[in-house]
Amino acid sequence: MGFSAMLDFMNKDSFSIEMKVRDYECDMQGIVNNAIYQNYLEHARHEFLHSAGLSFAELTSRGVIVVVIRAELDYRQALRSGDDFRVSVSVRQVSRLKIVFDQQIIKLSGGEPVLEAQITATSLNERGRPYFPEELKALL
Amino acid sequence: MGFSAMLDFMNKDSFSIEMKVRDYECDMQGIVNNAIYQNYLEHARHEFLHSAGLSFAELTSRGVIVVVIRAELDYRQALRSGDDFRVSVSVRQVSRLKIVFDQQIIKLSGGEPVLEAQITATSLNERGRPYFPEELKALL
Amino acid sequence: MGFSAMLDFMNKDSFSIEMKVRDYECDMQGIVNNAIYQNYLEHARHEFLHSAGLSFAELTSRGVIVVVIRAELDYRQALRSGDDFRVSVSVRQVSRLKIVFDQQIIKLSGGEPVLEAQITATSLNERGRPYFPEELKALL
Amino acid sequence: MGFSAMLDFMNKDSFSIEMKVRDYECDMQGIVNNAIYQNYLEHARHEFLHSAGLSFAELTSRGVIVVVIRAELDYRQALRSGDDFRVSVSVRQVSRLKIVFDQQIIKLSGGEPVLEAQITATSLNERGRPYFPEELKALL
Repeated sequence: MGFSAMLDFMNKDSFSIEMKVRDYECDMQGIVNNAIYQNYLEHARHEFLHSAGLSFAELTSRGVIVVVIRAELDYRQALRSGDDFRVSVSVRQVSRLKIVFDQQIIKLSGGEPVLEAQITATSLNERGRPYFPEELKALL
Repeated sequence: MGFSAMLDFMNKDSFSIEMKVRDYECDMQGIVNNAIYQNYLEHARHEFLHSAGLSFAELTSRGVIVVVIRAELDYRQALRSGDDFRVSVSVRQVSRLKIVFDQQIIKLSGGEPVLEAQITATSLNERGRPYFPEELKALL
Repeated sequence: MGFSAMLDFMNKDSFSIEMKVRDYECDMQGIVNNAIYQNYLEHARHEFLHSAGLSFAELTSRGVIVVVIRAELDYRQALRSGDDFRVSVSVRQVSRLKIVFDQQIIKLSGGEPVLEAQITATSLNERGRPYFPEELKALL
Repeated sequence: MGFSAMLDFMNKDSFSIEMKVRDYECDMQGIVNNAIYQNYLEHARHEFLHSAGLSFAELTSRGVIVVVIRAELDYRQALRSGDDFRVSVSVRQVSRLKIVFDQQIIKLSGGEPVLEAQITATSLNERGRPYFPEELKALL
């Protein structure tokens, strides 16, 4: 997806939250460590669940285990100390048991792309077998 | 410090920021992991520095290394998924080379105390010797 | 406790594990971030539990919630990329419901002290009330 | 890559290290959080650099900034408290400026696959422009 397509996408109807880099998230290169972006993406997905009336903690406590089975992350530009950014989320069902979260991170000042990601998830029942819980239909 | 004293203190003139628990900060007990509170406290201290015109990243890049030499943390009550909270910071100089940050965390709903901390810091020059940088006087 | 007293102590009969700094644990100052030391200490305590036949995960799943209520950490010297170190643990009961873990971190090369800590813990039953579970007696 | 192909691959000549899950790496589902696997992978890559006489910290301090530009992670099975696992790394050059690290995680008991990843990296010079530093040729 090109940059203008991405802006279109983000302006339309995806869910998004604003966050700010915290210094402990930066590593010895002075930039946000690679792994931290998965934290940002997860937090945005869980806030997206909340916006649809779903709590990840409550789902977990009821035995609905939503798991990531694949993550693709394209790092466009590093975030640094103090940067403000927006993380967007939209979701689509790609098979009977799988959903994909399309996510972007952009810097608030300038709107530069920071990261694009596709996160594929499914649910496991108590015996560890994949299924598609009723609850997740609220997202689609 | 008792609870009402703490409220007085927080209402008066300390710096504070609001944050929200992110699910990846919770451990298998379903509560925020002990170590994460130090992340919260550090982020609040660095935002406090910003409020005084100081950037931790910029200080670091100029060779002004501010280090924690002692931390005392009293955990009053655990934070859980989705909790909103406030982290406050005030500072006092306790010796020629040392400052102490007094910090509290309270839950936004109900104002219950979550954690109280005293974080002692000093600065090291390029040879690793303690000194008190001019810049930090802006905090006092 | 002075340095030679500490060495005596560590040589005698405390439990300890060896670990190595991982680069993602270092922050923009190029040293291990303050909060990470609490991770190291927790991991050593949980390995100590294992050495006494106790699993933190299993305790948690059975509803035995062991919580830290106070942490005192004295930072003597920073760890850096690649440093090997030893984390020791010993435990003592300080009241009917509280135990204290005395912990030290020393660098393997040279034996220099890195951190000393006293971590006070108790247990909460299902109603969130402190109690002293039978299981923890195995530690004492 | 199928499972038997993966075993062949790991038995042959890739670099690998053994690690153990630490409880603070587990989230409220009781399994290692998604983002933590990127920590494991990074640590294995940096140990791989060491095995070739390269230190990430030293490269960084000399201004050789190696950055991840794409990560693909396939999660096969979750790690849990106490699990021992092996992380392997091999590297190949895929274009004039890019290298790919092929990485796998398997459980030590049973050898079950946990995660497969392809991590694409490049280097940035002081002006933020990609280049291929002499030093990285030691890896190939």
